Amino acid sequence: MHYIGVDIGGMTIKVGLIDENGAILCKSAFETRVGDSPESVIDQLAVCIQRIIHSMKVHPDLLGGIGLGIPGSILNGEVLHSNNLHWDHIPIVDILSKKLSFDADKIFAENDANVAVLGEVYFGCCRDRQHAVLITLGTGIGTGIISNGQLLVGNGACGAEGGHMVIVPNGNPCTCGRKGCWEAYASATALERMTREAIEHYPDSGLANESLKEGKVSGKTAFNAYRAGDKVARRVVKQYIKNVGIGLVNLANILRPEVIAIGGGISKEGEWFCRALQDMMDEEAYGGEANPRVIIKQAVLGNDAGIIGAGAFAMYSSN
Amino acid sequence: MHYIGVDIGGMTIKVGLIDENGAILCKSAFETRVGDSPESVIDQLAVCIQRIIHSMKVHPDLLGGIGLGIPGSILNGEVLHSNNLHWDHIPIVDILSKKLSFDADKIFAENDANVAVLGEVYFGCCRDRQHAVLITLGTGIGTGIISNGQLLVGNGACGAEGGHMVIVPNGNPCTCGRKGCWEAYASATALERMTREAIEHYPDSGLANESLKEGKVSGKTAFNAYRAGDKVARRVVKQYIKNVGIGLVNLANILRPEVIAIGGGISKEGEWFCRALQDMMDEEAYGGEANPRVIIKQAVLGNDAGIIGAGAFAMYSSN
Repeated sequence: MHYIGVDIGGMTIKVGLIDENGAILCKSAFETRVGDSPESVIDQLAVCIQRIIHSMKVHPDLLGGIGLGIPGSILNGEVLHSNNLHWDHIPIVDILSKKLSFDADKIFAENDANVAVLGEVYFGCCRDRQHAVLITLGTGIGTGIISNGQLLVGNGACGAEGGHMVIVPNGNPCTCGRKGCWEAYASATALERMTREAIEHYPDSGLANESLKEGKVSGKTAFNAYRAGDKVARRVVKQYIKNVGIGLVNLANILRPEVIAIGGGISKEGEWFCRALQDMMDEEAYGGEANPRVIIKQAVLGNDAGIIGAGAFAMYSSN
Repeated sequence: MHYIGVDIGGMTIKVGLIDENGAILCKSAFETRVGDSPESVIDQLAVCIQRIIHSMKVHPDLLGGIGLGIPGSILNGEVLHSNNLHWDHIPIVDILSKKLSFDADKIFAENDANVAVLGEVYFGCCRDRQHAVLITLGTGIGTGIISNGQLLVGNGACGAEGGHMVIVPNGNPCTCGRKGCWEAYASATALERMTREAIEHYPDSGLANESLKEGKVSGKTAFNAYRAGDKVARRVVKQYIKNVGIGLVNLANILRPEVIAIGGGISKEGEWFCRALQDMMDEEAYGGEANPRVIIKQAVLGNDAGIIGAGAFAMYSSN
């Protein structure tokens, strides 16, 4: 059986055909333009999917399903709300089903962080795990949760918003309206803020030099300066890792996954980043050595995570 | 069908026979003594269960199962570790099965907070909910989680330790070894600490008088003085409610239950306590009014919660 995985982003939509082992047999992508209507975007998506099906000569009976990973709240095949896409109440599954003349019961839409964790569980670093969490450290913090082999989505599919747990009462304002959310301390955006603050305080530091060299402050600036030996950068990175670790251990204590996979831009800092988080987990997770260890891993699906995750979601939902 | 529910506490063991509607048809209890071996406790438990079965003339075919709610980590019918009972690696289901000559496949052991949430879902304030959380505000904070109709226990049944999420970095030390856990700010024990600290600062306050009147500081002292109009007590209670609310909203954002039930001694402060927490939830839960509301309710099963929860767990596990 084959599956189509669709990664719907704010600017780019990626479509791939995967087999049952998660191998991408063919992929394609198209850009959307600001102001494109949902109808027009879904139109383009249908054309793209059809092209792949035709070019790969996929027999309709051998297409197990189409999975859609979408940033926003998704329920029963409908995009209730998506900030990134500026969509509200778009019954994407119905629309796409009609455009493709493909059974709506075999098209599955889900939040992008949720499909991403399924990708890692089916084909990535959490393979065959019954309990797994994927967090993505990017503009915000996305969390996808598998508990007892099932995707945890909560009532109205509005759960798994782990980025919005307060870890500092009355702390930094978060986009969600609360103060002190984990996302406001541990996202890439938060790291950039911490980096900028440190540069203001220490304009002669290696960290400040690194940002001049890069021409901007990014999520990489502090890590690069730290690796070059700068002490200010070292403090920023250490504090950032602590911020990430607090939320990870919190999630571990609530959900006790076998693995927490770290994705998003920051995860590319590599193995030592995960090792530092593992140390904190081993130190602080509830029950210590008496309880099964929570393993921290770097997510492995990278740029194709969206396609593979959405394909995995189609497999998960159709089985 | 009938079910036996067993509530195993550090000092008292309660046993009840319930019907499919959660009505207690018969109950009994016995005290354990410090130093009683696990074998001797389970012996007494078997005798107690047998007496109930005989006195109520329960036909073996009509006994659907026996549920055991135990404080500690329980896996596959074994008490891995219980602080309260001082038990380690006690295969309670096997032992009890032999003593009762009752099928081990129909005896189910689980952590007490986990069975408690099932009691509220089957027969209490979360009836028929697919997504529910019960927190108990007592010496510590217990959390039981139902997600998608299933008990969330995590790997090795070591999850659902929501009390041990850090909400204040480098905050008050917690019994688990971390600093700043929710439990260290929102348990009854934490409220007592806050009350004692306020009395030290304001020895002439109504709060201080209330504690003299009561002869001690308890989880009720601040609430009583607050109701009598004392301003110091008001500050303590307001801060305490905020502490509880932070963790509740965190759990709501991660799990998005339909209902969060509040149990434990503090929950007896009544409806206005839940209403204050509801206000905070409505204000802060992720997605605001666009997402389904998370309802805060007072747990209703009270003193029988342990028996009914354990009975509900037997129903849940045998179906």
